[in-house]
Amino acid sequence: MSDRCASLPPVTIDAIRRAAERLKGRVDRTPMHHSRTLSKATGVDVWVKYENQHLTGAFKERGALNRLLQLGEDERRRGVIAASAGNHAQAVAHHAQVLGVPATIVMPKATPNVKVEQTQARGAAIVLEGDTFDDAYAHALKLRDERNFVFVHPFDDAGVIAGQGTLALEMLEDEPALDTLVIPIGGGGLIAGMSVAAKAVKPSIRIVGVEAAMYPSFNQRLRGEACKASGQTIAEGIAVKAVGDLPFALARPLIDEIVLIEEAGFEQAIALYVTAEKTVAEGAGAASLAALLTAPEKFKGQKVGIVLTGGNIDTRLLASVLERSLVREGRIAVLRFIGDDRPGILATVARIIGDGGANILQVEHRRMKLDAPAKGVEFDIEIETRDARHTAEIITALKAAGFQASCL
Amino acid sequence: MSDRCASLPPVTIDAIRRAAERLKGRVDRTPMHHSRTLSKATGVDVWVKYENQHLTGAFKERGALNRLLQLGEDERRRGVIAASAGNHAQAVAHHAQVLGVPATIVMPKATPNVKVEQTQARGAAIVLEGDTFDDAYAHALKLRDERNFVFVHPFDDAGVIAGQGTLALEMLEDEPALDTLVIPIGGGGLIAGMSVAAKAVKPSIRIVGVEAAMYPSFNQRLRGEACKASGQTIAEGIAVKAVGDLPFALARPLIDEIVLIEEAGFEQAIALYVTAEKTVAEGAGAASLAALLTAPEKFKGQKVGIVLTGGNIDTRLLASVLERSLVREGRIAVLRFIGDDRPGILATVARIIGDGGANILQVEHRRMKLDAPAKGVEFDIEIETRDARHTAEIITALKAAGFQASCL
Repeated sequence: MSDRCASLPPVTIDAIRRAAERLKGRVDRTPMHHSRTLSKATGVDVWVKYENQHLTGAFKERGALNRLLQLGEDERRRGVIAASAGNHAQAVAHHAQVLGVPATIVMPKATPNVKVEQTQARGAAIVLEGDTFDDAYAHALKLRDERNFVFVHPFDDAGVIAGQGTLALEMLEDEPALDTLVIPIGGGGLIAGMSVAAKAVKPSIRIVGVEAAMYPSFNQRLRGEACKASGQTIAEGIAVKAVGDLPFALARPLIDEIVLIEEAGFEQAIALYVTAEKTVAEGAGAASLAALLTAPEKFKGQKVGIVLTGGNIDTRLLASVLERSLVREGRIAVLRFIGDDRPGILATVARIIGDGGANILQVEHRRMKLDAPAKGVEFDIEIETRDARHTAEIITALKAAGFQASCL
Repeated sequence: MSDRCASLPPVTIDAIRRAAERLKGRVDRTPMHHSRTLSKATGVDVWVKYENQHLTGAFKERGALNRLLQLGEDERRRGVIAASAGNHAQAVAHHAQVLGVPATIVMPKATPNVKVEQTQARGAAIVLEGDTFDDAYAHALKLRDERNFVFVHPFDDAGVIAGQGTLALEMLEDEPALDTLVIPIGGGGLIAGMSVAAKAVKPSIRIVGVEAAMYPSFNQRLRGEACKASGQTIAEGIAVKAVGDLPFALARPLIDEIVLIEEAGFEQAIALYVTAEKTVAEGAGAASLAALLTAPEKFKGQKVGIVLTGGNIDTRLLASVLERSLVREGRIAVLRFIGDDRPGILATVARIIGDGGANILQVEHRRMKLDAPAKGVEFDIEIETRDARHTAEIITALKAAGFQASCL
């Protein structure tokens, strides 16, 4: 490791300041606000940096553009290539188009047409190749070699890392009193750039990294453990099996702590951003807030800056997360009970539920369940209530009428 | 009408400027941004004023606080009362608490506990009374008389109207070049205040009002038609059966045009705010954007300022709107076809769908449909696809295998 790292190019605060100069007027300066609602919800004094307000909905523009602006004349003519179906693709395509640099983006074959079309609309040539991201990535390297493109890596690149670092400069410029920055880790580019910038500007600042519990790649490498990262995390933007060598070398000495987030933590953070902040975060984008919800004791009494890194969440996934948050709160519940299989039973039950002010969403009759008598039926009734207390009232009312309802 | 109006207090630009001075430092100055994504989506050059970023999630704080700040010593001691389960309740409760003025809020009995608790947490006394909003309103007037409270009307009040008018001052200060403001109309307080302010600052500005097609109360009164407003609109915040006398008198001469929005228009606008702007709008809050989507030709070539008035949408409703937007786009579809009722049929169909890259969300077997043969079964299979084109591909593949699937 040390040998590999010794030959890596450094990313200095000067490089990040130069990146900030380069990006000025080309990448939006996103807002950062102190959030009273999130501070109340988490018990931590929170400032939110809204990176979901970039044109392409995520911070990736910073690194991509900084890299593109450092291309030589010859490189600009040859054009760039990247592998991504996500935020990096949009960032590279958009800024390459603005700069007049030809861009090719390799995406896995199953990429939704809407993403393909979005990226095409930004002027990039799209190559659909491979069943997985790794396949697409390998194909991009192959095309780079065949066609002499410049490869724009999403995180293991000094120019990209310096670009991401500008985020920390803006946060500390807007609120110099921040004690702690909470930063998602995928490949490590963001936390590497931000840590270098933040510790240079304010050496006392604490850097807390956040990883998905399914993909604790940085943490594992830190501990010298074998990489065991897999699974369908909602935080796909930071689901990276191997952190970059350069980000790891840069960030390792600067990170004070790493918090791992379970899936439910991401979901809660996404839902809280919607309900409390009226803003939309993708899974990885909600990681910093999830860290505050998961381990608030680590942040008590401090001024904490969190990064909402991106808002590009699939619409159905967002809808599903919001509905699941209602189940978690007891506002949607499935009541199960056994009743006689005779006329009028459902009418009676529906009346009790309706009189109680709850709304029936779905009814299922199960006649094949052997724990119900042959002349009985098991009912599963999905209801929507005002809250968990209201659900309990409905169950009590059903029991008073002889229906031994339990909540699934 | 003219007699009634003659006695009404005027709301002048000076009153609105004084309101702006009063609100400074007490109500957040919300951001306004030019939106490239919405401009592209609507074909109109759009600036969005983010009133969902207020502490209580809506613009109502402006009017409520301006009214509260004009209470006399004696009135402050007596305390205020309002009827609302929505944004006005939160606004009155919050600012009364900050000012140390006792506040009572009357809400209909079926108000969700979470809203009751939110308002209680802001220090207000809550009275749950009545089955409808009108009942709660009547009860609030009764309590005002009994207990000598000051009633804070949500819109038919000069102080409230002047407060709402500050919104237009901020928009024209941030972007003096705006040609048109598109403003939701419920009781009329917002459009009255904003019109007075905007036309005073920039006489050439065009004011377009937006009403829900189910509640075209302003439009009807303008035309001298009988009020026919009813129905469960998603834009509950502007579902008002009778506009206020004072707002009507003020706004009538200043409004250039009114656009009526059907329910689907609100839904599309809410979904577009989420996907394009990564921000959350309630139904009424999305009205201005819905007007651009409904009648883009009215805004072509102009610089248009729209107000995202509030973001307090029920979580399940938002989830439902997002899912319905996917059905609209063809990304969720129900395929219906008749197959033999024998082992292996579902496996065959599921394989075709799975091989095509679509995800099965739900399967229903209907054996009682008489247009299927006795040994047949009607299948309803809900699938999720990448887009409408992908759905069509799946249907083609099913047909090729002999399943005459149609899309419900």
